[in-house]
Amino acid sequence: MRKPRRYAILGTGALGGFYGARLGRAGADVHFLLRSDFEHVQKHGLVVDSKDGDFVLPRVQAYRDVREMPRCDVAVVALKATQNHLLPALLPPVLADDGVVLLMQNGLGGEEEAAQAAPGHAVLGGLCFLCSNKVGPGHIRHLDYGTVRFAEYAADAAPAGVSERTRSIAQDFADAGIQVDIKDDLVLARWQKLVWNVPMSGLSVVLDADTQALMTDPHTRALAEDIMHEVVAGARACGRHIHDTFVRKMIDMTVSMPPYRASMKIDFDEHKPMEVEAIYGNPLRAARAAGASMPLVETLYRQLKFLATRSVASATLAR
Amino acid sequence: MRKPRRYAILGTGALGGFYGARLGRAGADVHFLLRSDFEHVQKHGLVVDSKDGDFVLPRVQAYRDVREMPRCDVAVVALKATQNHLLPALLPPVLADDGVVLLMQNGLGGEEEAAQAAPGHAVLGGLCFLCSNKVGPGHIRHLDYGTVRFAEYAADAAPAGVSERTRSIAQDFADAGIQVDIKDDLVLARWQKLVWNVPMSGLSVVLDADTQALMTDPHTRALAEDIMHEVVAGARACGRHIHDTFVRKMIDMTVSMPPYRASMKIDFDEHKPMEVEAIYGNPLRAARAAGASMPLVETLYRQLKFLATRSVASATLAR
Repeated sequence: MRKPRRYAILGTGALGGFYGARLGRAGADVHFLLRSDFEHVQKHGLVVDSKDGDFVLPRVQAYRDVREMPRCDVAVVALKATQNHLLPALLPPVLADDGVVLLMQNGLGGEEEAAQAAPGHAVLGGLCFLCSNKVGPGHIRHLDYGTVRFAEYAADAAPAGVSERTRSIAQDFADAGIQVDIKDDLVLARWQKLVWNVPMSGLSVVLDADTQALMTDPHTRALAEDIMHEVVAGARACGRHIHDTFVRKMIDMTVSMPPYRASMKIDFDEHKPMEVEAIYGNPLRAARAAGASMPLVETLYRQLKFLATRSVASATLAR
Repeated sequence: MRKPRRYAILGTGALGGFYGARLGRAGADVHFLLRSDFEHVQKHGLVVDSKDGDFVLPRVQAYRDVREMPRCDVAVVALKATQNHLLPALLPPVLADDGVVLLMQNGLGGEEEAAQAAPGHAVLGGLCFLCSNKVGPGHIRHLDYGTVRFAEYAADAAPAGVSERTRSIAQDFADAGIQVDIKDDLVLARWQKLVWNVPMSGLSVVLDADTQALMTDPHTRALAEDIMHEVVAGARACGRHIHDTFVRKMIDMTVSMPPYRASMKIDFDEHKPMEVEAIYGNPLRAARAAGASMPLVETLYRQLKFLATRSVASATLAR
């Protein structure tokens, strides 16, 4: 029997806590980096209420500092993209010589930041379609979905194909009961996810609305659709073809979803930093470098930057 | 001595009350249409606190119904543009045979609605640069500005020149201490005013911000400037040339203004209908008919339509 793969979960929140606990329950050797929940989780473990069945991971290998963690085969970056300035400090200490970074974040550009923070290590993107919240210390509520889409990062942004290592990491997730999906083109996968994320995250924050309200009103629905087409055009400028029918599919899916609060909306409501640069700034810069403008996306970007500045100011004042 | 001109003020609020009281104080024969404030104003008159000097108009010719009003030389439409569906009922009873409609509203298209509501009567646009609020029944606070720009409406949208009648009405305002300005091209004057109104009204509502906050943040300032350029392009499609330096002038003026809450923002905060069609819908349709799209303006329009629907819904629920 082969030795179980060793995972470091950097960021044990709604996402890292969920996937890490599932991997741990399935027998992987999982090490969790925590901050405020450290003592609670060390004592009580991780509690996951899930639509797939509730469970507890009672004994958790918990750490407060990466320098105390063992070197791992896979370092799962489950921090918000707004924390990526920490990657140069977090990644090198936890990566085994042939360790891989698995970046489970929204937006564009995170893999490049991880690659720069961990030179010589392979980087894998993990695109999560997950609806989960942290409801208390070490307590995660998994509401819906959960699929992880894997794709390898290449410095030249070309489709990187699928290595055996990627397949075997994806297999660990599959063994943990996670639906997985392997793609050979990370950039395409990232842009496809942006098609939904860009309109729905931003409009939900700017208009203080959930997905259902935005789809019910004909004006915001048409606006969301126009923004999606603009993202498709941005992807095309970057050499990635997304078929127009994909936009229709995203709209139909959103219409048929139960009311959903995008993660950026949750961050905003909780006065936490929003992933504005990852979801808006980086795609805008990538498209611009390829000669394409996305004026509606840029409008949302500017509105969000304004709201983010004020949100930080009011959070500071409230302290 | 010529008989003083007779004015009907349709809508005795922050705007109609201010200009009407000033005309009345200066000796014009002014008749005011009121709703909720009728009894109070009949008893106590109109009170104007003004940066130009406080005054009271003690005896006010007040009416609750246009059918009780005398026929007037000038019917001043000082209602919000959202009330223009009332014009066919309001205008014909108060207009003398050669009576003129003076439309003192924001946005585009109001003069055309007035012309259709009062066939055979001349229509004059009155563009108001006024900062005033109604602070109580029959009580108006005039904070700043006050200039009225006059221009005649022509059904073919061509510059209509300046008639003797327009000059003499403007002279009444000038005699009342109002700064006046007469233009020969109503459509150009309307688009020029939109250059400021479109970005500042919409962004202030969508982002819950005053003009100063929008100018201080570099992202919203750049967005406002881009929207201004788009309005200039829309005007150009409609055959009106506004020089690019006008945008710079508007930005500089807004930067140097004290913090200002646009009237649309006041309406929104008070759960009153916003002039979304007059300020956004009509310019968008005019530009589109001329072959121009204004995607940023349309984005604001759609965001405002969404917020307006919800605002009405919440105002209804609150009753």
